[in-house]
Amino acid sequence: MEQASLRDLNEPLIDHAEGQFFLNEAFKIIMEEVLSNGTDVKQKVCEWKEPEELALLLDLGVRETGEPRDKLLQRVRDVAKYSVKTSHPHFFNQQYGGVDYHSLAGRFLTEALNTNLFTYEAAPVFVLMENEVLRGLRQLVGWTEGDGIFCPGGSTSNMYAMNLARYQRFPEVKSQGVWALPRLSIFTSPESHYSVKKGAAFLGIGLDNIIFVKVDDRGRLIPEDLDEKIELSKSQGAVPFLVSCMSGTTVQGVFDPLDHIADICDKHKLWMHVDACWGGSVPFSKKHRHLMKGVDRANSVAWNPHKMLVAGLQCSALLLKDTTNLLKQCHSANATYLFQQDKFYDVNLDIGDKSVQCSRKVDCLKLWLMWKAVGSMGLEERVDKAFIHARYLVEQMKKREGFQLLSMVAPVIKERMMKQGTMMVGYQPLGNKVNFFRVTVFSPLLSQKDMDFFLDEIERLGKDL
Amino acid sequence: MEQASLRDLNEPLIDHAEGQFFLNEAFKIIMEEVLSNGTDVKQKVCEWKEPEELALLLDLGVRETGEPRDKLLQRVRDVAKYSVKTSHPHFFNQQYGGVDYHSLAGRFLTEALNTNLFTYEAAPVFVLMENEVLRGLRQLVGWTEGDGIFCPGGSTSNMYAMNLARYQRFPEVKSQGVWALPRLSIFTSPESHYSVKKGAAFLGIGLDNIIFVKVDDRGRLIPEDLDEKIELSKSQGAVPFLVSCMSGTTVQGVFDPLDHIADICDKHKLWMHVDACWGGSVPFSKKHRHLMKGVDRANSVAWNPHKMLVAGLQCSALLLKDTTNLLKQCHSANATYLFQQDKFYDVNLDIGDKSVQCSRKVDCLKLWLMWKAVGSMGLEERVDKAFIHARYLVEQMKKREGFQLLSMVAPVIKERMMKQGTMMVGYQPLGNKVNFFRVTVFSPLLSQKDMDFFLDEIERLGKDL
Ligand SMILES: Cc1ncc(COP(=O)(O)O)c(C=O)c1O
Ligand SMILES: Cc1ncc(COP(=O)(O)O)c(C=O)c1O
Repeated sequence: MEQASLRDLNEPLIDHAEGQFFLNEAFKIIMEEVLSNGTDVKQKVCEWKEPEELALLLDLGVRETGEPRDKLLQRVRDVAKYSVKTSHPHFFNQQYGGVDYHSLAGRFLTEALNTNLFTYEAAPVFVLMENEVLRGLRQLVGWTEGDGIFCPGGSTSNMYAMNLARYQRFPEVKSQGVWALPRLSIFTSPESHYSVKKGAAFLGIGLDNIIFVKVDDRGRLIPEDLDEKIELSKSQGAVPFLVSCMSGTTVQGVFDPLDHIADICDKHKLWMHVDACWGGSVPFSKKHRHLMKGVDRANSVAWNPHKMLVAGLQCSALLLKDTTNLLKQCHSANATYLFQQDKFYDVNLDIGDKSVQCSRKVDCLKLWLMWKAVGSMGLEERVDKAFIHARYLVEQMKKREGFQLLSMVAPVIKERMMKQGTMMVGYQPLGNKVNFFRVTVFSPLLSQKDMDFFLDEIERLGKDL
Repeated sequence: MEQASLRDLNEPLIDHAEGQFFLNEAFKIIMEEVLSNGTDVKQKVCEWKEPEELALLLDLGVRETGEPRDKLLQRVRDVAKYSVKTSHPHFFNQQYGGVDYHSLAGRFLTEALNTNLFTYEAAPVFVLMENEVLRGLRQLVGWTEGDGIFCPGGSTSNMYAMNLARYQRFPEVKSQGVWALPRLSIFTSPESHYSVKKGAAFLGIGLDNIIFVKVDDRGRLIPEDLDEKIELSKSQGAVPFLVSCMSGTTVQGVFDPLDHIADICDKHKLWMHVDACWGGSVPFSKKHRHLMKGVDRANSVAWNPHKMLVAGLQCSALLLKDTTNLLKQCHSANATYLFQQDKFYDVNLDIGDKSVQCSRKVDCLKLWLMWKAVGSMGLEERVDKAFIHARYLVEQMKKREGFQLLSMVAPVIKERMMKQGTMMVGYQPLGNKVNFFRVTVFSPLLSQKDMDFFLDEIERLGKDL
């Protein structure tokens, strides 16, 4: 203890040579455990432990004194060992499985640079790069102009859209709060992502002011019902301001009919937001882009390259048609310590005030590097491949008996698969239907035999049930 | 073009061997350019280019077809070259300079694992680890119980506190929105971070409902004025609900008198939030923890280990005294596809619904690994060192002539330093004072000679002015 307090605090506390050696060793472990073993079909997807047992194994508590290098490297190995291998071909659990090495290189570089994306001075490369990537994404949506920003996830992108829609209609909300406004109403599909609810609660609009529009038997929002519900809401004294519709619902992957919805939004002069967090990548594909026909008529689009494009968490873009600097007007606080106006370069490049964050991670580099590596054509292939696998699975399931009967036993099958670690896939109820498995199969790492494995494995795990 | 469309989309699109080779090469470049050259005092902090020139150099546009490996590696090198070296000893510009190699190893591992922190099933290690790290941080605040969560930055942590304070007082806000509530008011220091403004606007409370309390000549909030302003606000028909006070203001590093403020909050039964994003690390230091005396009486504390502790962006903890599961009640949406209640393990470990995000990055691993590596004592040294350097700078500046006269010429000096790339430091006005330089000197990499360099360099850059 005395030893430490005698260290000369006028000198650096960190030794670069030792630090870089450690980082090198840790990198080797990451390569081996996460990227080689972790993507090997012969290895487990997860190494299930009960929480109490895992806590003991990992010895998580922090202490007064530090630990030696070898112990720390063992910790790196243990964290890798007991974590779920999200890049494993049998991880079908959620919408972020898989790995892209170019993106991952971009992510390592992002971490090492530790750049804060608020001013040109602090982030010259990334201010320009974010701009360019957003331009590329907007182009796919069909916009030659516009605005946008990367957000810490699609939920935040959806919330931003909600706040912008409100501010555009009632700019006084920024200074006076919601009290100055009539009661607002939001329209969305019952299949929409729960972030619409979280957003309405967080922004002070309230869950009761979300109105759920009917969907057809394929889960698509019915424009006529939207029209009626808007009229009804008006007649009840509320002011409709936002329609939040879906390109790729979370559970079933449904695409709402955007063109028809746009007609209704035009008619009532409502902000049209498209939550394309999951489906937003289809415009890359000539075959499938028709699913989002009409998206260019929206006011905003939320799109998560960390899902179908495997860009890595987090990577979510909010795209805006607006050309009036609404994003900045709505979110700015004009802090003098960051956004001085007497700078020696064009202060329009200081984009930080468009965000409600202050520190903001660089989320564009990983997408940019991946896009440069495979081109738009490479990304198109990934989208097409995802559809091919999904279709194959559906066809195969129809041929196999018993796949309709899974619902009662889903939790048991899930428990068995987790404890054996052979694969991971999520289950859930939907509406008044009972439990079913939701398989996500978009990763570019997958092959048809992984689809077959999925089917065989469900059968194996459930055969005595 | 035909070639590509002939690829068999039933097979994987990504080659692990090639991908891992690329990642290895990129890692070497990162080591060399960012961590070796980038921390070398003999090299530049930044390689200034005008935006148009930089855009050309980087060739940022994305295209139909991909690029070969060597070209991509050159891109990695260029991004590194033209980015600001935030770990360079002469980067005094903002509160996130410096590098910790253990933390960085944790960040690389985080990226490779690509874990989404919402359920125990998907993130067994990190659910437990986040818990443990939050417990460790709460202990420093003086709480043996409580709750908490990592947020994408301190601004979000501050917003969460605002939303929780509102919900605790008026739970109906979640369903009915702000319309159901009386007009609310928030109390804070004029020196508080701009995220209080951004939060009030975003949450539908409005900037006009922030009431700025007077500060003394050292910039500390005056409790008597707080008391009066609360009374005044009540008499004007508003309902005060939150006092957001500061442990370490952004510009001057001022610590508000928490104990006195707590008395006033007790008296009026208001939620007391401490924005300790910048100063929150002082409890590690026996010498300096008195600055936050009384923090244990707060309801919530926001603390950014990505600032003084150099944990890397983003790392921000919101700590709560609450033991009633307020965080989850306030933010939950109970999505059935993630948070099924018929799971085979304790669903209290599925912490995702405490967040308003859905996907949530793992921000605890980097802090945990660093803490394990140097212990609480090592972090104490970093805090003490930051104070030693700050004090040294103040003393030296008093001895040098001309340092009071900088204000008129700050923008010119700044432009010169950026274009020469010798160092980076921010300037700004404060209240009715004119521009001054705001030097941040907390990085554990710094030595006293870097302080001397700062002073000499300012003199050199400004000597003809
Ligand atoms: C349709 C849809 N929208 C939004 C989101 C939220 O995105 P994030 O997890 O990045 O917050 C999801 C995530 O599952 C989603 O499926
Ligand atoms: C006192 C204070 N609070 C909050 C913040 C915001 O933190 P973040 O940048 O992580 O959003 C800052 C950042 O400068 C700060 O100095």
